[in-house]
Amino acid sequence: MYRFKPELRIPGPVPVPSAVSLQMARPVVNHRGAVFHEKFPDVLSRLQPLFGTKNPIYMITGSGTAGMETAVSNLVSPGTPVLCLVGGFFGKRWMELCTAYKAEVHVLEFPWDRGVDPDQVADFLASHPEIELIFMVHNESSTAVLNDVEGVSRARGDHQALLVVDAVSALGGTPCEMDARGLDVVVSASQKCLMMPPGAAFIALSERARAYVEKSEASRYYFDLRKYEQFLAKGETPFTPNIHIVFALEEALRMMEEEGLENVYARHLLMRDMTRAGARALGLELLVRDEDASPTLTAIKFPEADSFRQRVREKYGVEFAGGQGIHAGRVFRVGHMGYATPLDVLTALAVLEIELKKYGQATEAAERVMAAR
Amino acid sequence: MYRFKPELRIPGPVPVPSAVSLQMARPVVNHRGAVFHEKFPDVLSRLQPLFGTKNPIYMITGSGTAGMETAVSNLVSPGTPVLCLVGGFFGKRWMELCTAYKAEVHVLEFPWDRGVDPDQVADFLASHPEIELIFMVHNESSTAVLNDVEGVSRARGDHQALLVVDAVSALGGTPCEMDARGLDVVVSASQKCLMMPPGAAFIALSERARAYVEKSEASRYYFDLRKYEQFLAKGETPFTPNIHIVFALEEALRMMEEEGLENVYARHLLMRDMTRAGARALGLELLVRDEDASPTLTAIKFPEADSFRQRVREKYGVEFAGGQGIHAGRVFRVGHMGYATPLDVLTALAVLEIELKKYGQATEAAERVMAAR
Repeated sequence: MYRFKPELRIPGPVPVPSAVSLQMARPVVNHRGAVFHEKFPDVLSRLQPLFGTKNPIYMITGSGTAGMETAVSNLVSPGTPVLCLVGGFFGKRWMELCTAYKAEVHVLEFPWDRGVDPDQVADFLASHPEIELIFMVHNESSTAVLNDVEGVSRARGDHQALLVVDAVSALGGTPCEMDARGLDVVVSASQKCLMMPPGAAFIALSERARAYVEKSEASRYYFDLRKYEQFLAKGETPFTPNIHIVFALEEALRMMEEEGLENVYARHLLMRDMTRAGARALGLELLVRDEDASPTLTAIKFPEADSFRQRVREKYGVEFAGGQGIHAGRVFRVGHMGYATPLDVLTALAVLEIELKKYGQATEAAERVMAAR
Repeated sequence: MYRFKPELRIPGPVPVPSAVSLQMARPVVNHRGAVFHEKFPDVLSRLQPLFGTKNPIYMITGSGTAGMETAVSNLVSPGTPVLCLVGGFFGKRWMELCTAYKAEVHVLEFPWDRGVDPDQVADFLASHPEIELIFMVHNESSTAVLNDVEGVSRARGDHQALLVVDAVSALGGTPCEMDARGLDVVVSASQKCLMMPPGAAFIALSERARAYVEKSEASRYYFDLRKYEQFLAKGETPFTPNIHIVFALEEALRMMEEEGLENVYARHLLMRDMTRAGARALGLELLVRDEDASPTLTAIKFPEADSFRQRVREKYGVEFAGGQGIHAGRVFRVGHMGYATPLDVLTALAVLEIELKKYGQATEAAERVMAAR
């Protein structure tokens, strides 16, 4: 019906503000030239408040998975004992990456609708002093669960393991507080809460993680963070970067700085609460209980979810994401991250209402939540 | 003087046509959705005439080096005997990549101003039947040499080795003819002759190379071509791609198809001949002899090349590239690839003339070359 104005309500890639999109159309500059030298380190340093770190941020031209592999290839040697916390598709991706790099992989599995349990992590670590790296996901977008990274860091206590966090669908939508929480490696990407097109990943390391990188014996070249460190010192990347993501990032950060990071995070919480209240008012069942709910997307149980999604896409131009892994076909996911507002959530809820022939209820509930804040 | 209108005459990233740049600003689409499913395989297949292959092309979100590492990580296992043909910076990059992947690396070195000598390759292979992979560069942009890939393929004869070619700064500027010439793996990237911003690499495999990929024991995940093959079958990539490069590629290919590939290649040869004639008329010495000269860039010897480049950049807004490796500081390189015309070459030559206070000579020489074609 309204296919000429698509509403992309998937958990990434997300709609990009026009002002950011236009940066993507700028003329190319020399990535070894003066303009880039000046801009690049400055723009990256403005990501530090989002990561919550005083350490440098590196940009890898690639997808979020490229960022995750950058972490693994710089840390994991054959036989390194690692612990992967798996409660969804992206936790599994850490496990697959560590397996590909021939780590000694230990896995703690959690239900695919619950957050990681820090107590179980503490118990496991107590009996496994040899573990060198813990891999976890901050926001598990396959299940719409926000994991308690701070709890896991605390559960680690004085165990030696470094904590490596996939914050691809979290960073910019919810506080990361890397340094304060003791996260050792944080990975994110351009196309989620950072409001940019896909094309680049970002990664930061604690001092301890930086030192640990020297130990890794894995084969790596494009992902070798030591090269990125050397080149960042001269305002460059070792390999031709996605120059336009740097331009886009400058504008996206300007917008987030103007809104204020606290307001950005509060907006995401509001969108979460509205989506959940609206879905409940429609009699729909949420996949995740309140205490584990993601601020950046919501998963809703639905029989024959895929044909429902197709109908909604074709009739209204609103695109939801399907379920992943064990939830395929039985869940749909509503993205509310990045360049999204509570009004966008109302649109999504209105479509659900209309399609479910229960006019009025959900948006009323959502409006009550919006008013309550 | 004219810094508001920069003339980027470096060998990549190169200026991008406005029509292509505007594609970069398009709204984001779902990379797992209908629009992308329809467009992606179609656009990639239109690269086949440029590669000169009937085999599928895969797109890796990353730089040209990411494309090269895709080749290495899918082919090289620890201990694999490989031969790298090194006559410049990018030949050396193959060697470094193969070393990082713990190959048994053999190197044939060639002077950094000459093409690879197929006879030496034939001799080496005759005494090294164990070599499984040959790595070479089609257009060595560090020296402005076009290597004879066909000659090397022929020199290989019925030796078992697969021939892996870096065509990053060649593809789209000079015929590749992958299948006809018996090249087994060809890698290229978006930001050179393909007239796009940086952000993606492209790779194609012969049937024999495809079968060989199964043998590789290297740790790989993001670069695992078997995943790209699986996902291309459904019109997707395994990991969130640089969606906008797909849009940009569609427009860039439309432009190249409209011009006609033969005309595109002829234009590059003309720009080469003009640049060389103009430089000679100015009394400048070319780094590379005629028979090895690259159609996509030209290297010119110049004392104190870097301060000269800086002066030209600041006074006229024309940016040349510096020398690489042993040529650093003693050579500058003039890019004439992709979205560049003989008129752009005249601009570059005019600036050289003015700066060298020898008005008239070079452009006259260049005009004679242009008229002769």
